[in-house]
Formats: sequence, structure tokens, C-alpha cells
Amino acid sequence: MIFRDAIRDDLPAIVQMLADDRLGATRETFADPLPDAYATAFDDICDQTGNRLIVAVDEYDRVSACLQLTFIPGIARRGMKRGLIEGVRVRRDLRGTNIGTRLFEYAIEAARTAGCGLVQLTTDKQRPDAHSFYEKLGFEASHTGMKLIL
Amino acid sequence: MIFRDAIRDDLPAIVQMLADDRLGATRETFADPLPDAYATAFDDICDQTGNRLIVAVDEYDRVSACLQLTFIPGIARRGMKRGLIEGVRVRRDLRGTNIGTRLFEYAIEAARTAGCGLVQLTTDKQRPDAHSFYEKLGFEASHTGMKLIL
Repeated sequence: MIFRDAIRDDLPAIVQMLADDRLGATRETFADPLPDAYATAFDDICDQTGNRLIVAVDEYDRVSACLQLTFIPGIARRGMKRGLIEGVRVRRDLRGTNIGTRLFEYAIEAARTAGCGLVQLTTDKQRPDAHSFYEKLGFEASHTGMKLIL
Repeated sequence: MIFRDAIRDDLPAIVQMLADDRLGATRETFADPLPDAYATAFDDICDQTGNRLIVAVDEYDRVSACLQLTFIPGIARRGMKRGLIEGVRVRRDLRGTNIGTRLFEYAIEAARTAGCGLVQLTTDKQRPDAHSFYEKLGFEASHTGMKLIL
């Protein structure tokens, strides 16, 4: 398993994974060609300092898992930088292997190297399995995650 | 009340607000001179595209409230950009006025203008009052906020 930043050619595989999910199915549009919004978002991620879309690929360079990691400098906690994780997915046929854990370990180490003092994420309350996965990695459910759809 | 991006001279007032809080008191160091880490973080915020430290100031340009708003492009939800809010504080003698609400309305509008499809934040479970404040603004407590201290 290799971990690297995503390239544009990975985008269909990433969107397919995002869509292949109970909640994601209603939120994504996986089609050929992909809606332009995905490529625009990919370019925006590449253009923003400290924003990384990370994929795990197998020996044939097939995308097996993904997450987005954003480094955010802030004033709070004595000017502590934090890492934010979003959009975590493991390919359906690979769930239950340890790819998710290894991808997270890679991302956490990347955050540490970038000088982050904490890593944070929010997980939908409709995903109890994800919740316990993150707790095993050492995350603490200390906060409530609130969203306002615009 | 005027809302604007913070300048370096606002930093002591911002750190004072962050520290003047039950949880913040243990996390911040408000001293004269301020620890360098705060100025470094301020410069990092200014340098990162889409990262804004916003203050509410009164007619004498005194800082009354602050929050940090970060725009984060992402692949999920059809390439939706999101706004992340962190480090929210209202000066102690002004709490219970509507400054917090107005600052949030300003930030939400800024996120909308920047093309965000949602605004998100996490609130410590030890702050029940904050929780209901955010719900009044329309935020939904749909997620669990998880943190891993590095």
C-alpha cells in the first residue's frame, strides 16, 4: 500500500468511493463524464496552501481509500495549527481490512510533521461504526459537530 | 458595530478574550509581551488563502468579539466548499448582548459570498450555552466532533 497526494486522474475513483455509501449516495453524482464541479474543487484544493487530498493505492496504482487533510493555522491554544480531516472513504470491497487505519496513521503523521498540535474531524451521528473506528485511533468525542446548510 | 478582518494590533485583545474563559484559561498565555507563537499564527492565517480572522469592533475600534473563518474546498458533496468556524469569543462585559449573533450573521454571509454550501463548527460538550446559541442560528447538531491531541 502506497500513500500519496491525489492526481486529477484519481478523481473518478475518489468520487465513486464517496458515492458508494449510504449517506454519500444522496449527495454525490458519479457519472461519466464527471460533473465539472469535482474537477474545479480538485483544482481549488491543489491551489490552497496546506490542503491535501490523500489516497492509498495498491501495487497497480488503483485507489483503495481517500481522505482530505487540511492544515489550519489559528490563534487559539497558543497559536496552535490544527489538521482537519474530511471525506474519508475506503473502497467497499476493502472495508474491514486495515487500510483505513493505515491511511489515518499516515495522515496523523503528516499533520504532526506539518506542526499541528491536534487533528480533528466530525463524524455523522448516523455512522456509529465510524465513531468507534476513530476512538480506536485515539480520537476523543469531546465536541458536538454542528452544520448549517446554506 | 463594525466587522472587519483583524490586524496585528488587535492580537492582544483577541488573546485576552480567548484566555478569559473557563476552558481558554488553561490553554492560553495572555502576557505582555505576548508569546511569539501568537504573532506567528497570525501571519500564517494571513498567508493562507481563504483563512480569515474576523473581529467586531465598537466606534472606538475596540475589539468586542472575534472568530476565525476558513474556507475549505473539498470533493465531497459534489465539490462543495465549506466554511469552518473556530475560536469564537465575545468580550466578557458584552456577553448576553447580540454581538455574537451579529458577528455570526456576518460570517455566514461571508461564507455564502465565498461560495460555501455549508458552515460548520465544533463546540465543546462542556459548553451547553454555546450549543443552544448555535442552534438558534440554525446550526444542527448532526455530528460528533472528535479531537486527537498530538
